[in-house]
Amino acid sequence: MKRIPIVVAGCGGVGRQLLEHIVNCRALHSKQGLALRVVGVCDSQSMLVTNDIFADELNDDVLTRICVEKTRGSSLSALGDIDDCQVFDYKEATMQVIDIAGLLGRSTGLVVVDCTASSETLELLKQAIDSGCCVVLANKKPLTSTIEDYEKLTAHVRRIRYESTVGAGLPIIASVTRVVASGDSILRIVGSLSGTLGYVMSEVETGRPLSEVVREAKRLGYTEPDPRDDLSGTDVARKALILARLVGWKINLDDIKVESLYPEDMAPGTLSTEEFLSNGLPLLDNDIGGRVRAASLNDNVLRYVCFIENSRVEVGLRELPKSSSIGRLRGSDNVVEIYSRCYRETPLVIQGAGAGNDTTAAGVLADLVDIQDLFK
Amino acid sequence: MKRIPIVVAGCGGVGRQLLEHIVNCRALHSKQGLALRVVGVCDSQSMLVTNDIFADELNDDVLTRICVEKTRGSSLSALGDIDDCQVFDYKEATMQVIDIAGLLGRSTGLVVVDCTASSETLELLKQAIDSGCCVVLANKKPLTSTIEDYEKLTAHVRRIRYESTVGAGLPIIASVTRVVASGDSILRIVGSLSGTLGYVMSEVETGRPLSEVVREAKRLGYTEPDPRDDLSGTDVARKALILARLVGWKINLDDIKVESLYPEDMAPGTLSTEEFLSNGLPLLDNDIGGRVRAASLNDNVLRYVCFIENSRVEVGLRELPKSSSIGRLRGSDNVVEIYSRCYRETPLVIQGAGAGNDTTAAGVLADLVDIQDLFK
Repeated sequence: MKRIPIVVAGCGGVGRQLLEHIVNCRALHSKQGLALRVVGVCDSQSMLVTNDIFADELNDDVLTRICVEKTRGSSLSALGDIDDCQVFDYKEATMQVIDIAGLLGRSTGLVVVDCTASSETLELLKQAIDSGCCVVLANKKPLTSTIEDYEKLTAHVRRIRYESTVGAGLPIIASVTRVVASGDSILRIVGSLSGTLGYVMSEVETGRPLSEVVREAKRLGYTEPDPRDDLSGTDVARKALILARLVGWKINLDDIKVESLYPEDMAPGTLSTEEFLSNGLPLLDNDIGGRVRAASLNDNVLRYVCFIENSRVEVGLRELPKSSSIGRLRGSDNVVEIYSRCYRETPLVIQGAGAGNDTTAAGVLADLVDIQDLFK
Repeated sequence: MKRIPIVVAGCGGVGRQLLEHIVNCRALHSKQGLALRVVGVCDSQSMLVTNDIFADELNDDVLTRICVEKTRGSSLSALGDIDDCQVFDYKEATMQVIDIAGLLGRSTGLVVVDCTASSETLELLKQAIDSGCCVVLANKKPLTSTIEDYEKLTAHVRRIRYESTVGAGLPIIASVTRVVASGDSILRIVGSLSGTLGYVMSEVETGRPLSEVVREAKRLGYTEPDPRDDLSGTDVARKALILARLVGWKINLDDIKVESLYPEDMAPGTLSTEEFLSNGLPLLDNDIGGRVRAASLNDNVLRYVCFIENSRVEVGLRELPKSSSIGRLRGSDNVVEIYSRCYRETPLVIQGAGAGNDTTAAGVLADLVDIQDLFK
């Protein structure tokens, strides 16, 4: 049995779901001679670590209790005393992970899994890589820092996986990686990578005002608490940057031209979320509605996409043929079209649900299974 | 530099293209610390092997000469004497590969790449796996033999890759593998896995007679020399079997219900290809035309698909909604829809060109790069 030690950072939605998946897949993985051994789990306030990181693990009872507590919204520290485990507070947690990475990195190996949404894990992850560990990310921020940070993180390209940073569990990173590995030159990538904006734009296309659709999307839980976090395009830009860097471009977030769907004078510093939704957003209805109608006259639809071509990355609204994969998209699915030497006439298309804790955690788990050959 | 020894069996279209890709990707792979060392190449008549399989390789000049000779339709033996290499005839070639597998399997490791379309490589591949080697396949036949053979071939699941057996380089196998690895239960797979039949059915849909479309497809080089090899559905059935077995079903080719597009009294033993195309095929036009029109009345299209659900695999014509990914398909692209717990409402869809030597060889090469972690 190959036993792979893991530390999971972040046990909100995705991290918690990952722990559940790990427990549920025991039999499946065991059949393939694989055991995922969780030696530590962190949330934003504390860290739970098994006393003997070389041989022991947080057993399935403990992992299940963590899931229960986190579902209730409690902190890890609410678990109380657990046999053969220690709890550390926030300040100690980072040092703990670095210590574990140092101890296990060059012996049994270790995978540090980042399921947070924090930019503060970056230093820890770089140290983990330096110590010989592997890293699996659902967190986009470490990969979208400076190019120097990116190069340090990906210095050992086989030791880092990050499928769930783009399109959740959809095999987008895996597919682009395969295309690149085979020497097939990528000419263009066009992606609808925000389920929220995909939903919004396909609803606006039916003639509904933007403001009405966004308010509805917020009510349905499709948007961030402040929908401007979606409408700004920053999240899509991060995903586009991850894809562009994977293709080999040495660019930074600043190099990406991002079209925000609201003007600066409606930014969070100026208007509250409520003011934006009630008074700001309706002022944008006519403009967007007009652009949608103009696109339609050209047999196109207006979609919020990332466009990666000729070392240029743009994120924003773009007219695309109604008959294209992205043009035909309805609802909140993500789509990526990859044009390359092999897929020149019609693109390689990957489509499906690109959000959700279950799917995102499934992508992380597939990365963990896929990295197994680096362990003895 | 990680040096991975490779033997390539088959250097017709796909194998030859693979050798070209390997030569063209030297710089790319070298940047990642990877060198693919081709120690032997076989065609259907002979085998060329480097004298020192432990340290040496067929250099890029030799590989390029092989590509040139094979493009001309010559045999490997036409290369004449090559320094530090030996040529073996057909009878000796299999034993040579088995010897090399035995010698390298448990030392440096070896990947045996099967780019043939033969069912005769199976024993050799099983022995290679037994000897500790890896196997990469573009050839469907070894994977679609008996379940016992399949289990032997896949006994070490990480040591065998076969992306290019289904949809050429499209990341279908990789994606299904990821979904399975994450414990996401697959509910249904529907695939249009024959570019030829995809083209034929979408043309018939425009009102053209089947016989006319098939004759045109043959003229354009879209079909096998005898189009009945496509119309029988056997090739699609093999792909469906590979997918079903990957999902975990222990079934054989015989368990698949296959609808042939021509009746038994038009089989190759009864009619010549020419007779079939001129006299047989036109007799089928009315029936197919009628079924296409009936489907259209239900807002459906008729497509030749594989349908994998509830441990049942069926291959044949099926009515599918015009609005589905497969229903919207035009031309010769392949499409696979994967329905699972994570992709329940709308499927995970992978679409793109599913044939061609370039794409197929690119898929094989991506497999070779992906298997590298098994080598020191």
